[in-house]
Amino acid sequence: MFTMLHSQQADGYKLWLKYDKIENSELLNEYAEIVSSIYFKDDNDILKNAKKEFSLALPQMLNKQVKYSSNISSDNSLIVDVYENLPNDLKDLVGNDIEVLTDEGFIIKSLTYKKKSITIISAKKNIGILYATFRFLHLMQTHKKLKSIDLVDSPKVDLRMLNHWDNLDRSVERGYAGFSLWNWQKLPEYIDQRYIDYARANASIGINSTVLTNVNANALVLTPMYLEKVEALANVFRGYGIKVYLTARFSAPIEIGNLETSDPLNPEVEKWWSNKVAEIYKRIPDFGGFLVKANSEGQPGPQNYGRNHVDGANMMATALKPFGGNVIWRAFVYSEHDDTDRAKQAYDEFLPYDGKFKDNVLVQVKNGAIDFQPREPFHPMFGAMKKTPLVIEFQITQEYLGFSSHLVFLPKLFEEVLDSDTYQKGKGSTVAKVIDGSLYGNTLSGIAGVANIGTDLNWTGHPFAQANWYGFGRLAWDPDLSSEKIADEWLRATYSNNQDFIEPVKNLMLTSREAVVNYMNPLGLHHIFDTGHHYGPGPWVDNLGRPDWNPVYYHQADANGIGFDRTPSGSNATEQYASYLEKTFNDINTIPEEYLLWFHHVPWDYKLQNGNTLWDGIALKYQEGVNDVTHMIQTWDNAKPYLNDSEYNEVKMLLQIQLKEAKWWRDACLLYFQTFSKKELPEGVEKPTQSLEYYKSLKFPFAPGIRPQWD
Amino acid sequence: MFTMLHSQQADGYKLWLKYDKIENSELLNEYAEIVSSIYFKDDNDILKNAKKEFSLALPQMLNKQVKYSSNISSDNSLIVDVYENLPNDLKDLVGNDIEVLTDEGFIIKSLTYKKKSITIISAKKNIGILYATFRFLHLMQTHKKLKSIDLVDSPKVDLRMLNHWDNLDRSVERGYAGFSLWNWQKLPEYIDQRYIDYARANASIGINSTVLTNVNANALVLTPMYLEKVEALANVFRGYGIKVYLTARFSAPIEIGNLETSDPLNPEVEKWWSNKVAEIYKRIPDFGGFLVKANSEGQPGPQNYGRNHVDGANMMATALKPFGGNVIWRAFVYSEHDDTDRAKQAYDEFLPYDGKFKDNVLVQVKNGAIDFQPREPFHPMFGAMKKTPLVIEFQITQEYLGFSSHLVFLPKLFEEVLDSDTYQKGKGSTVAKVIDGSLYGNTLSGIAGVANIGTDLNWTGHPFAQANWYGFGRLAWDPDLSSEKIADEWLRATYSNNQDFIEPVKNLMLTSREAVVNYMNPLGLHHIFDTGHHYGPGPWVDNLGRPDWNPVYYHQADANGIGFDRTPSGSNATEQYASYLEKTFNDINTIPEEYLLWFHHVPWDYKLQNGNTLWDGIALKYQEGVNDVTHMIQTWDNAKPYLNDSEYNEVKMLLQIQLKEAKWWRDACLLYFQTFSKKELPEGVEKPTQSLEYYKSLKFPFAPGIRPQWD
Repeated sequence: MFTMLHSQQADGYKLWLKYDKIENSELLNEYAEIVSSIYFKDDNDILKNAKKEFSLALPQMLNKQVKYSSNISSDNSLIVDVYENLPNDLKDLVGNDIEVLTDEGFIIKSLTYKKKSITIISAKKNIGILYATFRFLHLMQTHKKLKSIDLVDSPKVDLRMLNHWDNLDRSVERGYAGFSLWNWQKLPEYIDQRYIDYARANASIGINSTVLTNVNANALVLTPMYLEKVEALANVFRGYGIKVYLTARFSAPIEIGNLETSDPLNPEVEKWWSNKVAEIYKRIPDFGGFLVKANSEGQPGPQNYGRNHVDGANMMATALKPFGGNVIWRAFVYSEHDDTDRAKQAYDEFLPYDGKFKDNVLVQVKNGAIDFQPREPFHPMFGAMKKTPLVIEFQITQEYLGFSSHLVFLPKLFEEVLDSDTYQKGKGSTVAKVIDGSLYGNTLSGIAGVANIGTDLNWTGHPFAQANWYGFGRLAWDPDLSSEKIADEWLRATYSNNQDFIEPVKNLMLTSREAVVNYMNPLGLHHIFDTGHHYGPGPWVDNLGRPDWNPVYYHQADANGIGFDRTPSGSNATEQYASYLEKTFNDINTIPEEYLLWFHHVPWDYKLQNGNTLWDGIALKYQEGVNDVTHMIQTWDNAKPYLNDSEYNEVKMLLQIQLKEAKWWRDACLLYFQTFSKKELPEGVEKPTQSLEYYKSLKFPFAPGIRPQWD
Repeated sequence: MFTMLHSQQADGYKLWLKYDKIENSELLNEYAEIVSSIYFKDDNDILKNAKKEFSLALPQMLNKQVKYSSNISSDNSLIVDVYENLPNDLKDLVGNDIEVLTDEGFIIKSLTYKKKSITIISAKKNIGILYATFRFLHLMQTHKKLKSIDLVDSPKVDLRMLNHWDNLDRSVERGYAGFSLWNWQKLPEYIDQRYIDYARANASIGINSTVLTNVNANALVLTPMYLEKVEALANVFRGYGIKVYLTARFSAPIEIGNLETSDPLNPEVEKWWSNKVAEIYKRIPDFGGFLVKANSEGQPGPQNYGRNHVDGANMMATALKPFGGNVIWRAFVYSEHDDTDRAKQAYDEFLPYDGKFKDNVLVQVKNGAIDFQPREPFHPMFGAMKKTPLVIEFQITQEYLGFSSHLVFLPKLFEEVLDSDTYQKGKGSTVAKVIDGSLYGNTLSGIAGVANIGTDLNWTGHPFAQANWYGFGRLAWDPDLSSEKIADEWLRATYSNNQDFIEPVKNLMLTSREAVVNYMNPLGLHHIFDTGHHYGPGPWVDNLGRPDWNPVYYHQADANGIGFDRTPSGSNATEQYASYLEKTFNDINTIPEEYLLWFHHVPWDYKLQNGNTLWDGIALKYQEGVNDVTHMIQTWDNAKPYLNDSEYNEVKMLLQIQLKEAKWWRDACLLYFQTFSKKELPEGVEKPTQSLEYYKSLKFPFAPGIRPQWD
């Protein structure tokens, strides 16, 4: 029925901020009592936005208007203000809790004040109040008891960033949810409501930084015409505690500055960047800084002038320092003149620079050493680079994970990486501790996620991809959160609080990442995607300009076996890990099987732990992936009673694409690998319905997310 | 307040199908009585969709559930069914009205049946019921009395078509409302709710054909991979009476058919197209046919093989004929080897072919002979080409009208063209009569509009651009409708029925088109837009590859005067019009002043009808355009009490862009033309704030809607 379809449109747009009416009367009474009289100071933009959120959410959830008082009085059931504005007797009651907060932290506490039970929301700074507001409303949305709440929370990571790979023509590199939110043509005058709702969504999960432009950068964004537009966005985002960053094209001094060089040690170049930075801060006093991809995949950089990454990063850091800005320098580099295993190159290149970067430089490292595969071992730079704050870069957009057609709950992947133990400072030296700065005492810390957000009505293309945006933000706030808790929170805020719905669907989410590993890249296989667009399988591809762009380079299948030997008999990439891990990975008997073919070239008849041969094991894993998706569909079908037609149909259609494509992956990969193994498919694996030639013939020239040709 | 902003998002998405609750209790009672018991047969997809629309709309407008009966009974207050299913006594009552209907027409009538007042909605075919349903609901939305309704209506034009200039990468050539609705990547499995709502919107205004792809065509859409996706869209649209057309790239037999030629007289080529057509109809039995841009602006065509347009069109027509499909062949051609005034070339090329096309060929002609300018005299082919059905092509998207930032109510432009008298069969031979086929008795007729629809939440970028989509559909249904009536209908359905709101805002709409003519191209000036993107003024541009791509070619400004001489002393384009018009246009004393510089090169000190010199007159017209926009802003400000914050702000921000750009047009054009006239600006014209060099320096490499580079 159309009524439902229409309302669902709006629902998808609202993300996890739906604020549905609460039907449970007990909860309703509890909440109504808590907010029966609110003191909420809103004398600045951030607090105004916080109070607006209250005014939007409470009447919807509680189905009644809410009363605000203009002074703190004994009538108030809820008091919301920053610590320094509280009356002294209230300060005394919460002082200890406030003390432990960071500038972004907050408290939400039930206490007895003037002999009355009240709730207080407070923080050191305005932004803490905004974060607390969203958390408080979220707790109501997810039907948590609030009567005796005692919540003291601060983010563990400083920079919680989205990276938008958005081009000025509004195409989005690796974007699968439509096109760029930034309507440059109508900026600065026209402020799309989407900018505000984007900021609300981010603030609700604690994201505090956004890089508006693609790392494959265009210098034009640094010209006055575009800076005026960036300023308009920054003005919106500031009220939600979000700082704007831009990508800085290293050759900008030549392209837009009329200089003949962009040599970082050239005084004219240094001056140009200093002036440019001053120009930006004049417009945007809280500008975050630059994200730079240099000397990587064709981007210009300091090496064009015989300089190195430290020279480049420090030159920009010097320009930004007086204004409090940061340089975030990407470590995703590999040289076209170096045939070393690509997995080793970033470590080799950057480790010697440890300790040489200025203190406002962070080095941003992808979660794994190759490129956002369904599964990779953690990047060996984590833990090894001890004096430099490392930002971990996750990809929320699903470049190698089925685009926005596949349901894959990525917090499971993020959690796996963050929980990985680097052993670099003994057992327990997890990636999370490297990132939050606690392992080596860094003064700056950061987590970045390549955004999966676009102009699609539901923002992310797949309704469940909203959970990846949500989960990224939650993990950036607290890298120790469990993916299970995140799935639970998101499902409740997005779909339903009904436990009979949540349990099976949460399980579906938590198993979905292993499913995609199984049907795409089991047992440590990686980078066997079709050329350019990375849509679908292309393990046979061997014709690209560089060896390490070709899938055959990564799987190394031959008559004997399959897998990339990264032990001492091969590229010895294992040497970049702490010695305990190096040994574990080198030994085929101790290596976790999920990384087997990442590190070892293994004979087809090698016996896996479960007794299967490698060939049978690979084939059965592919089949298992397909079976996983079939099971996901069953789970979704069973959840139908808890969904409206549109909610049900939307995901069902997408799951059917996922099933079709899972089978495509299985059939194409197995047929191809079979040309080496010469072995039959084991029992339990469905026979392919098409020939290998058919799969090889498939071409997708207009698959979304391809790097634009002007670049 | 966010509540409003949120609801407005949904409102923009809903277009003119908002179905707001009716507050007027008298009307509410009248309507409630009419629909108190409904018989609505829905035994096929079209009727199901009609009934769904009832079920969506009535409960919202009337704030109560509506009762349907499964048989016609004496209880029924409203009976909805096709004529042949009606009981005989009812048939007798409406038979005469039904008889005059076309297959798409309908009746909505109050009558006395079995001594009871009832309303009947009937038609010859299901599609008529669907159209009647939307009209009936629209009449309620716009608060019309329905108690004694007697409406008998049929469309006057057969093919009421949207042309989407949508590329397979989802960019939209000349698109300013985001990107293509067609998410090829997720088709055929994923049916976006937008496809359904797009079809609903079109059906509600009688649009019955859609060309999914750009006239600058890509042959890939004719491959099975894409045809499967087209089929999925056709399956959705069929239920709303909409036929799908595709653009056919003339060289497709080479590009996807492995042939070495696409010579239309080559038997292999003929066979290839016949097979391709059969393949399409197997998937889409009601496929509409092909729209073809051939031998124009670099597109391949029959002339590549020494053949002509008739050869090309008839070859495709032969392939389509057995299945009932049409060829729509575009007449927008101009030769790179011909330096004849471009305004003359299409006429010269096509007139000799009149009578030579097969009967399922229509020739599609732009409304004017140049290219969708703010104002053009009607294309001389209209009325002159007597034996060939001509489809008029309007541009709903605002390529030359300020993109989606300028409020320009285009039905005013469409009406001006349709009402133009060609005099080709004596006085009263209007373009409308040529197009609806009544002038020459054509058996096929059509109106096409280049769509302004994209992925923007509100579909068209500017909220008022929705009125251009709406108005196009209404005029395609009835080319004699007044733009005033259309504005009234649209405002009521979209914003408010309050007369105090409607009158001034309707006036704003009706004057908006003259405003844009004034501040961009007054007195017959044309094609003085900046290169490529056509964003903003570029009258100085003189460096493009062909003379007739350059603004200087079109305005011919020099020390003596300005304007393009199309009289016998010049290109003699006037000879292509009927002799009465030819004389009128040739004589500077009789030519309507709005076409003055279109047809005449006029001295700067020529006296206009109001006594001003031409130079002063041009300058004052530019100023008048700016003043018009200032006045529009005042009108909008006065309308604020009738709008919610978000409705008000959205349009206000856009009007401010429009004002800024109107001034830009005025200043840039006058500064440039002043270099020829050497005269001061007259009193009343504001002084430019920037230099001519400044305006010339502006560059917009990422302006939206540019033709993609892969083409």
